[in-house]
Amino acid sequence: MQDPNVRPESMKRITTEELARAFIEEQVASIRAQVGKGKVLLALSGGVDSSVCAALISKAIGSRLCCVHVNHGLLRKGEPEQVCRVFGEQFDVNLIYVDAVDRFLDALAGVSDPERKRKIIGGIFIEVFAEEARKLKGIKFLGQGTIYPDILESKDGIKAHHNVGGLPEELNFELVEPVKLLYKDEVRVVGRALGLPEGMVERQPFPGPGLGVRCVGAITRDRLEAVRESDAILREEFAAAGLQGKVWQYFTIVPDFKSTGIKDGKRTFDWPVVIRAINTTDAIKVTIEEIPYELLYKIRDRILAEVKGVNRVLYDLTPKPVGTIEWE
Amino acid sequence: MQDPNVRPESMKRITTEELARAFIEEQVASIRAQVGKGKVLLALSGGVDSSVCAALISKAIGSRLCCVHVNHGLLRKGEPEQVCRVFGEQFDVNLIYVDAVDRFLDALAGVSDPERKRKIIGGIFIEVFAEEARKLKGIKFLGQGTIYPDILESKDGIKAHHNVGGLPEELNFELVEPVKLLYKDEVRVVGRALGLPEGMVERQPFPGPGLGVRCVGAITRDRLEAVRESDAILREEFAAAGLQGKVWQYFTIVPDFKSTGIKDGKRTFDWPVVIRAINTTDAIKVTIEEIPYELLYKIRDRILAEVKGVNRVLYDLTPKPVGTIEWE
Repeated sequence: MQDPNVRPESMKRITTEELARAFIEEQVASIRAQVGKGKVLLALSGGVDSSVCAALISKAIGSRLCCVHVNHGLLRKGEPEQVCRVFGEQFDVNLIYVDAVDRFLDALAGVSDPERKRKIIGGIFIEVFAEEARKLKGIKFLGQGTIYPDILESKDGIKAHHNVGGLPEELNFELVEPVKLLYKDEVRVVGRALGLPEGMVERQPFPGPGLGVRCVGAITRDRLEAVRESDAILREEFAAAGLQGKVWQYFTIVPDFKSTGIKDGKRTFDWPVVIRAINTTDAIKVTIEEIPYELLYKIRDRILAEVKGVNRVLYDLTPKPVGTIEWE
Repeated sequence: MQDPNVRPESMKRITTEELARAFIEEQVASIRAQVGKGKVLLALSGGVDSSVCAALISKAIGSRLCCVHVNHGLLRKGEPEQVCRVFGEQFDVNLIYVDAVDRFLDALAGVSDPERKRKIIGGIFIEVFAEEARKLKGIKFLGQGTIYPDILESKDGIKAHHNVGGLPEELNFELVEPVKLLYKDEVRVVGRALGLPEGMVERQPFPGPGLGVRCVGAITRDRLEAVRESDAILREEFAAAGLQGKVWQYFTIVPDFKSTGIKDGKRTFDWPVVIRAINTTDAIKVTIEEIPYELLYKIRDRILAEVKGVNRVLYDLTPKPVGTIEWE
């Protein structure tokens, strides 16, 4: 018998809308067969995988899909709004939006150790999600946007992959994982065929703890805001310059460090914003994007003019290895 | 009568070796007339102004010029050695080399406030210099590399200019300032005519507190070493690329801040080196040098390979105003 966690050799790479439509039909039938009249719970992060998974399940069972979007305050500018717009209006799902910003940021206050930050973020996420799950009695299924590389990596022992790992055992969910045999590029093709907006389908890889790892050291609300605003400017200017979708990943970092500057004739003592823009095929070897100086100036000038608490802009020239993609 | 602190309108701009030689002859006569059989004391920093001043006075009175070179541990790589080589061998002066590295660095340990750092460095410098002055009894004159812009700035009330300000009053020196009517470019022409090495004559502007302001925050010996070594690499590569003397000022900064990296498969937690390379005509408006990526990569790769405790290289894109040239 075919192992359900092994991609059959006969399975064609999904590269066209036609192939995507065939895959969608097949999965809709399969989800209906699995779930019957049941309900599915899904943690919607705003990432490509969970969004495509939600759109697929919603197509199969409509509002018997219950999506929980936890806003932990570490999302990019406009992302919670986009998730609510797409899944609250465009798709027929039962969407629960949880504003947990204060809960996360209060717990993170004063915590500078990267590992502890990650654990706190992951831990509270599970808490909040489990609280919502308990409220919604009678849900047997948990939808997850597991994709094929996740499965391959867990087999290799590289990492245990749980999109929502660590849920209390009492909840005892049966998993629904409609995209678990797809590669990332196929997930995107399927997402487009499902009518998800381009910005969501082409979303860059984004770390689980969100902007939290780019607000290096102990997170404060004002510095987090500087990360979010500068990141939005960088994304806007990269899109305007035609670099969106061409450069693998780009974002900004605001380290917990200040230096002297001058504004309107007065001394300032503010943070630097670091621009990171990298290319890679495997995320193991990474080179930097050679951003033209003209574009760097445009981004720099906007950041210095629009972002509060910032008086310098730096470009990170570091390749991986030696540096890592993220700063912590 | 002509005010000795006003450049006469009849004075020609010194742009040629011939004009420089005439100026040198005139000053040699003037120094001899002022000093007679007396001795002159001079604090030799290794900068253009004090070096040219020392060379001029030495030409006039030989080893009756006593130069004190205080090594405060904040000089660039190779600078104390160059000062000793040039003034200990090439010129006939009485050179006193004071190794005060521990005294400075011990006093600076744990001090992160920029203003306090500057005050400590300035204060100890005066202490050390005054101690040497007291040992050398019978010196009536103090040589100083004051130049014309210094005089103009003190007149404008912008800053009180003392090359060795704050010396105890009991020492009661009479000043010898042979280049006080010269502009910087003229000082360089005169320095060349006196036979000073090109590296000394074309030395970039260097802050009084030396590398101390580029080892941002509380200075530690290991981070200071990272500043010195990365600065030396930057200068070497700029020279090899033909940028020395073309770019107004370039140096490196190592902030007191660490981030995650990877080396030989292991996690590292090290400092970033920031490259600063700027152009200006007046030091008030500053633009950055558009270093080609190829050269940036070369400098970056050498820094990451050769400098201990460093895992990132950043390029500072900040203009002035908004940023300042130095980071503190």
